[in-house]
Order: sequence, then C-alpha cells, then structure tokens
Amino acid sequence: MKFEIASPTPFILMLRPRSGAQQWVERDEFKITPTTPIFEFTDSYGNLCQRLIAQPGLFSIDTSSEVITADYIDSGFDAPFVEIQNLPDSVLSYLLPSRYCESDFFNEMSVKITQGHLLGYNQVSAITNWLRENISYVPGSNYQPISAIQVNERQFGVCTDLAHLGIALCRSLSIPARIVVGYLYNLEPMDMHAWFEAYIGNRWYTFDATQHGTPGGYVVLGFGRDAADVAIFNQFGPAVYPIEQLISVDQIEE
Amino acid sequence: MKFEIASPTPFILMLRPRSGAQQWVERDEFKITPTTPIFEFTDSYGNLCQRLIAQPGLFSIDTSSEVITADYIDSGFDAPFVEIQNLPDSVLSYLLPSRYCESDFFNEMSVKITQGHLLGYNQVSAITNWLRENISYVPGSNYQPISAIQVNERQFGVCTDLAHLGIALCRSLSIPARIVVGYLYNLEPMDMHAWFEAYIGNRWYTFDATQHGTPGGYVVLGFGRDAADVAIFNQFGPAVYPIEQLISVDQIEE
Amino acid sequence: MKFEIASPTPFILMLRPRSGAQQWVERDEFKITPTTPIFEFTDSYGNLCQRLIAQPGLFSIDTSSEVITADYIDSGFDAPFVEIQNLPDSVLSYLLPSRYCESDFFNEMSVKITQGHLLGYNQVSAITNWLRENISYVPGSNYQPISAIQVNERQFGVCTDLAHLGIALCRSLSIPARIVVGYLYNLEPMDMHAWFEAYIGNRWYTFDATQHGTPGGYVVLGFGRDAADVAIFNQFGPAVYPIEQLISVDQIEE
Amino acid sequence: MKFEIASPTPFILMLRPRSGAQQWVERDEFKITPTTPIFEFTDSYGNLCQRLIAQPGLFSIDTSSEVITADYIDSGFDAPFVEIQNLPDSVLSYLLPSRYCESDFFNEMSVKITQGHLLGYNQVSAITNWLRENISYVPGSNYQPISAIQVNERQFGVCTDLAHLGIALCRSLSIPARIVVGYLYNLEPMDMHAWFEAYIGNRWYTFDATQHGTPGGYVVLGFGRDAADVAIFNQFGPAVYPIEQLISVDQIEE
Repeated sequence: MKFEIASPTPFILMLRPRSGAQQWVERDEFKITPTTPIFEFTDSYGNLCQRLIAQPGLFSIDTSSEVITADYIDSGFDAPFVEIQNLPDSVLSYLLPSRYCESDFFNEMSVKITQGHLLGYNQVSAITNWLRENISYVPGSNYQPISAIQVNERQFGVCTDLAHLGIALCRSLSIPARIVVGYLYNLEPMDMHAWFEAYIGNRWYTFDATQHGTPGGYVVLGFGRDAADVAIFNQFGPAVYPIEQLISVDQIEE
Repeated sequence: MKFEIASPTPFILMLRPRSGAQQWVERDEFKITPTTPIFEFTDSYGNLCQRLIAQPGLFSIDTSSEVITADYIDSGFDAPFVEIQNLPDSVLSYLLPSRYCESDFFNEMSVKITQGHLLGYNQVSAITNWLRENISYVPGSNYQPISAIQVNERQFGVCTDLAHLGIALCRSLSIPARIVVGYLYNLEPMDMHAWFEAYIGNRWYTFDATQHGTPGGYVVLGFGRDAADVAIFNQFGPAVYPIEQLISVDQIEE
Repeated sequence: MKFEIASPTPFILMLRPRSGAQQWVERDEFKITPTTPIFEFTDSYGNLCQRLIAQPGLFSIDTSSEVITADYIDSGFDAPFVEIQNLPDSVLSYLLPSRYCESDFFNEMSVKITQGHLLGYNQVSAITNWLRENISYVPGSNYQPISAIQVNERQFGVCTDLAHLGIALCRSLSIPARIVVGYLYNLEPMDMHAWFEAYIGNRWYTFDATQHGTPGGYVVLGFGRDAADVAIFNQFGPAVYPIEQLISVDQIEE
Repeated sequence: MKFEIASPTPFILMLRPRSGAQQWVERDEFKITPTTPIFEFTDSYGNLCQRLIAQPGLFSIDTSSEVITADYIDSGFDAPFVEIQNLPDSVLSYLLPSRYCESDFFNEMSVKITQGHLLGYNQVSAITNWLRENISYVPGSNYQPISAIQVNERQFGVCTDLAHLGIALCRSLSIPARIVVGYLYNLEPMDMHAWFEAYIGNRWYTFDATQHGTPGGYVVLGFGRDAADVAIFNQFGPAVYPIEQLISVDQIEE
C-alpha cells in the first residue's frame, strides 16, 4: 500500500495476521518506508493494531506472510443453536446491533428465510444460500461501507455488504455473528476480502456468500462487530487514499 | 421493575452501579423475586452485567444504592483536544461510528457548529449548546433508540437521542465520545437517564444537553459506544415489557 | 477494621465481594470514615480492588454484605483431570509456582499422597485428607504468610498455610489451583478465612482442609495465585496495623 | 531448539516477539517440524504464547526475527519515584512479592543500598550498580531458577538470578519491577537473556546488571513477575530437555 502524504497523518492499521485457533503464522513481514515509530496494541476484539504518524512525502506499507490454513472450511451441518444462557460472556456482544448491521430490523425476514430449518448451523446456511441467490456479488461496486438495510434495498454489493446483511440476519435470530477481514486464496478479482462467522455448537463457523462450496485458504487479519471495527487502515485528519495497493495470495508448495 | 413472564426468558441486565473514578457505591442492593440463579460478569467496557433466565410468572427486580457523587460536574473550559497519536489505546474505539451514532455523516455539520471555538472542551461545549437550542428535549417521545441521523431530521427526542447526536458530532471531529446510562438526581420527570462523555485533556468530561448549568448527582450504571451497548435490560425471545417500573433518586442528608 | 494513621498512607483493599458463578451479592455496604476519595478497579484475576490514601488520624472501614451462597459445597467425586491441552487459556497461570506455593518442589510428595487415586477430583480429595491428618490447623499461630515448604516442615499452620500447601501439591500434579479469601459461616474462631480451589472436570471445585464434611456458607472476596495476590489490605509506607478488627457472619432467615 | 520426545507432551512456548512501545518486529518466522496444530493466545501480561502437543520423535522449533530496536537503552537520571496512588492499576501487581522475588525480605537491605540517592531512577541505578559489584555474573552457573534470597546468599548467578535480586530490591522500596526475557545483541556467551525493568517517571526503564554502560540491541520475548511467568518453554509430563539449542543475534546493515 502506497500513500502520498501532505501533512502528518495518524494511522491505525490492522495488517498483522495473528496466530490463533484457525491459522498459524509461520512467517510475517511488516515494513514501513520510510522507517517511522510504530506502536502495536491489541484491541478489545483481540486484533493486533498498529499506530503511527505518517510524515509528509511518499509512505508505503509492505506486509507479507506465510500462513498455514485449512484446505476446506469446516462445515457443521446440524450443529445446534446455543441458547443465550449458555453462550460465553465474551460472545454476547456479537448479538447486539452495530453501525452497519441493524439486526433489530430483520427478525421477520430472517424467520421467513430460515423457516423449516433446524435451529443453528442450518439456519445460517439457509441465510448464506439466500444471500447467494438474492444479493448479487459485484466486486468494486461500492467503496464506502453501507448498512444491512441499504444492502437489502440495493440487492447487490461487495463482499463486506453481503457479510453485513448475513450478520444482521443471524443476530436477529439470536445467533452471535461477526465480520472477518483478511485474504482469500484464489479470490477473483484479487483484493482484500471480508466474510462472516456465526457462533453455533460452541464454536465459530465461517460463512462466505461470495463463494461457492467450502474451499479454504482464508487468512484472517481481524474480527469485529462490523466494518467499523475492522478497517485495515483508519486514518485521521484530511482524507488520504492509497495511490497504489497490490495484493496477492499464493499457495506455497509443501 | 416488574415483568409478567410467559415462557422462560433469558435476560442480561446492567443494573449494578460500579465504584470507579467518578462515584463511590456505599451501599447496593440487588434482589430478584423469585430467587433465580444469576451470574455476574464484566463486559468489554468494564460494566457489571447480570445474566439470568426468568421463569414463567411474576418476576421482579429491585435495586437500590447509596452512591457518593459530585455536587457539580466538572467543567473544563479550554481543556485541549488530544491528538490521535496521544490517545490511550483503550479510548480509540470511541472514535468509530456505531449503530446509533453515524459519525461518518456529520463532519461538515460539526465543523460548522464549532467554528471559532478552541479545539477540545470548547468544541464539545459548543455542540452541547447547539443541541440545547436546536433539538427539543421531549421525554417520552420515543421508546426505541433512533440514530443520530434520524434525531437530526426530527429535531426532537429523548435523552438518549440527544446523547447520540452529540456523540456523532464529537466523533466526527476525532474527539472520542461515549454514552452513559444511569440516574440523575432531580431529573424531571424522573426516569432512567442517558448523557454523554467526551475525552478531552486526557480525561472524560460529562455533557448533558437535557440539563442547564452543571448540577451533579449523576449515578453511572454503564458506559458504551451507544444505546446498543448499554441497555439496562436485554431480553431474548418473545418480547417482554415491564408491567411496572418505579425509579426514584433522593439526596441523603449527611 | 480500624486504624490509627500517623502519616498519609496508600491502601489497596480487596473487601467487596463480587457476584459471580458461585454467589450472589444481594446487598453490599462499604463505608470509609472519614470520607476519603476511593477508586475501584478490577485486577487481572477479576477481583474488585479499592485504592485510597488514608489521612492521619482514626480511619475505619466498615463493610457488610448479604450474600446468597450454597448450603453445601459441591463435591465432584470422579470428576476427571483436565489434560493440559484442554485447559482454558485463562487457567494456565494457576499451574505455575508462585511466591508461597513452590510447586516445583512437591512432585514426589504429591505422587506418593495420591497413589492409587483416580486422576482428578479424587487426587485433590486425597491431598485435602492428607493435610487434615498431617498439618495441624492452629488458628492464630502465624501472622505473616509462610510458604508451602515452610508449612510442610512445621506441620501446623493457619488456614492460609494449609491452602498454600494444598495448592503447591495440586500444581505439582499439573492440576490448576488457586487461593480464595473470604468469610465462612460458623468458622471457629470467627475470622477472615482462606481456602483453595482446584480446576477439575472443566470447573473449579472448593477444598478446605480446615473443615470437615462439605458445609457451605463460603463468601468469596478474592481469588489469586497465593496470599501475595489476595491481601485484603495492602498498605505502603511505614507499617500500620488494625487497632480493631471485628468480623461476623450470620445466617439470614428466609 | 530440538527435542527428542518419548510420549505426547504438551508445551507452552513464549517465543514470538511482540511489537510494542519498545521494538518493532519487521519480520518473524516460527516453524514447527513436524507440522503440529498450534494455538496462540495472549497471557495476562500481554505476551504471545503458543500451545501445542509434541508427538513422539524428533521435534524442532525454529524461530527467527528481524526487529528494529534502539541503539542505546534510555537512561532517565532523576526520573522521579511514582507515588503508589499515582501508579496505573495495571502496574500494581508488580509491587507484590512473587515466587522468585521475595521482596518482603529485602526492605532493610534496599534502604541501605540506596541511601543518599534521589527517589526513583537513581535508586534503581544504585541497586544495579550494587549488583554489578557484589553479585558475580557467571553464565551457566545455574540451570533452575533460584530465588532472590538464595542469590543474595550465593553472591553469584546467571542473568535471571541478578534480575530476580534486582526486582526484589526495587519492590521492597515500592518501585514496581518486572522481569524481561529475550535476546541481547553481542551477549557473551550468546544465549537467551533476562534483565529487568522498573517503573519510574511514568514509564518502564530497562536495567541490566550483567552489562556495562547502556548498549541497546535488546529484543523482548516476554514480561512477567519473575522467571515462573516467562519460561520460554513450559512443558508438562515427564521432563524433556532440548538436545540442541542454537541462538544467534546479528545486526542487519541498513
């Protein structure tokens, strides 16, 4: 990512993948040019975030990682709905409406979409199928996040838009759901990517309405309630846009 | 608070004031009738929350506290704006847009309102004055939270509505702002109350566009990004409404 | 608790019981005389702690609570040992040696004591029985915490001493164990009390080698690795001792 | 690091440096051979820890990092002692005695060593100088951590031993102190290294009684109360020792 900076500009980045239950970071590089003091902290979702002030002139961020990830995402047909009283404390906040996921508006719709499906994984699977069939995935159609209500009206959107609507529908059924940003191997066209996870059967499962089947190759950069929490860069002061942004995801031969 | 429960209903409450920098809880009572297993946890904002499942029948919650609080809220004229790079990590999330505070829409408006004011406390004070003059405070006019954009269109609202618009305006100027719910001595008419805080001069200051002057007597129950985070009760399953809710705040003679 | 303070003295207290999985605080009072600014925070074990500076003169702390607690502590015969790899992250630190629990010295001894017992609850039960038979419980025999090695040499001690040795023996078998301080109904002679918990079968169980049977009536004030973490008061500067300390625990008729 | 494993062995590692206020990790590699599921979590000190179960056979861990670090450690002569009441909550636990730092025993000694020195940095500097002159640094003299009391009796020790005594002396003066493990450029002989930090003038300062002057090149792997918290590997079950451990720290030309 390259920027041309006019005046000193504070940035908060979320560009370092974290090893966790779903991926192992074997190698990670994170270079800032020119060298600038950077401070890394963990936000309340557990994401590694980087703070810095970019000085005027050319400013570039180069990151690269080798991550061990699953070949296929887990599917969990029939994994049961977790009763509210049995959810871990830390998962409860993913039931609440958020900036771009107005779950308080979607209960009627989500009940209709999931009718006849077993409570839990099968409901989220029905929601994801509904999104695939009813909301066109149009990469590049949108540069600012819009909210689930707007996505539902427009009936098309980028990956983030489909995730927001999916999340709002899940939460309206009392299923905790969160957005994930990162990379996806073989994504067409290649770009940053966003998808969502739902908490079912005592764990998080991955759902991605922009893809078919359950191919793996997902690399997580961050989790949050919606796009407001997981901007890969937040910048303050006069708006600055990347003059160049190159992304590639390759498979490493074993 | 009294409910008539038809089927077992999970609740998450936020009804225990916490001692902290701003108040000292000398006495606290929290009774549930009939006795029901309750689990208390701390959410990611530091609030004490209570989880329980209400069983069918009459269900009542009685809380009462004696809290030492300031006679006047602090005012901090000329307290300076804190540059993004100097904000504590834990405060950064209060810069982001949230469900009911679409700060991403308000920059133009907030710049206009605060023109000519020193960066920091004086800006937030100008915003609060603007709210007092332009958004009518109409208790009871609204029972579901609406968002800052909607408040700005309607030009009237309840305490939560004024707080949401104030928060959105602050964040659009890169001033961290959060909602506070609790009680206020002498509030007319007596009810639960909501106001907001802004982070200036390295601390949080209290602002309340529903009141004039700086009387104290605020008792905090919880903090959050907006009303979605600080519901004094969140209830899941078929909607249940209190059949009775009595609130009183009295001064204790020393 | 009453003190006579000669010069301004910082205190950190741990005197507010917290509602949680094991107890519900129905009523809580916490008064400081004379009134002094107090700040409450949550430490890394989840305990509520209070910070203040006592000014010269008489200084007293009065706390009182009504707590709903179990009539009998749970026993969990045959509850299984949890393999290290299945322990929650947050429990791992309770496997490590600490100031007063030099678990690294006790493996041989703990293996001998627990020989022939099923891994898990039954091992900890064997350890508790061994303590009852081999380390005399002598209230008031000791005013400064001593460590498990010293307790084992002396073969008598106060409640904290028995807990420290129990914890060290558990940890040496890779069973997470922690100290608990609080009150116990019917304790003879009445005083603050300490006991320990061990993590078995995916939950914490209570063990108290100073008592026989499994009577309940335990009120928890704080958890920690050992007595260093759970002092009900930590005071800094020239040593100050309570000139009076009154404790009582009564049963409230339902 | 290479091991020969006889039976499945749970490990907890602390081998991933974290970017923070003091260092920036530009590149990081962390490979396990053979490939084994690993889970990474953050402990209560903020360290990145890795959990895994090594299977029987040869098992090796290869890590390598490029870290930007200061050329010289900061010295802060005359930086003032922070009064207890002004310490951040999160620093308070570093005042307490811990497994290997029995600070409760050292007040008389630390008062003597620091007599005539300004409260704060200069006291810790006096302690570090005293350690340099009175406790011989003998790499390899010790393979199990011993406690500050034992170090003080023996009058020689490894880097960890000097750090433990330094920490105990600081804490006995109400100066928060913590151990740090990691790497040091130009350490002779090359090995893992440990030193300590003290909290003075509202920040942490680095002290290392094994070195002279204030050369930089420190790479932090973890922080803790003492060696019990920051083992670079904790292993459970029958003891396993590395059959090979190679460490090198090189300067990268810019």
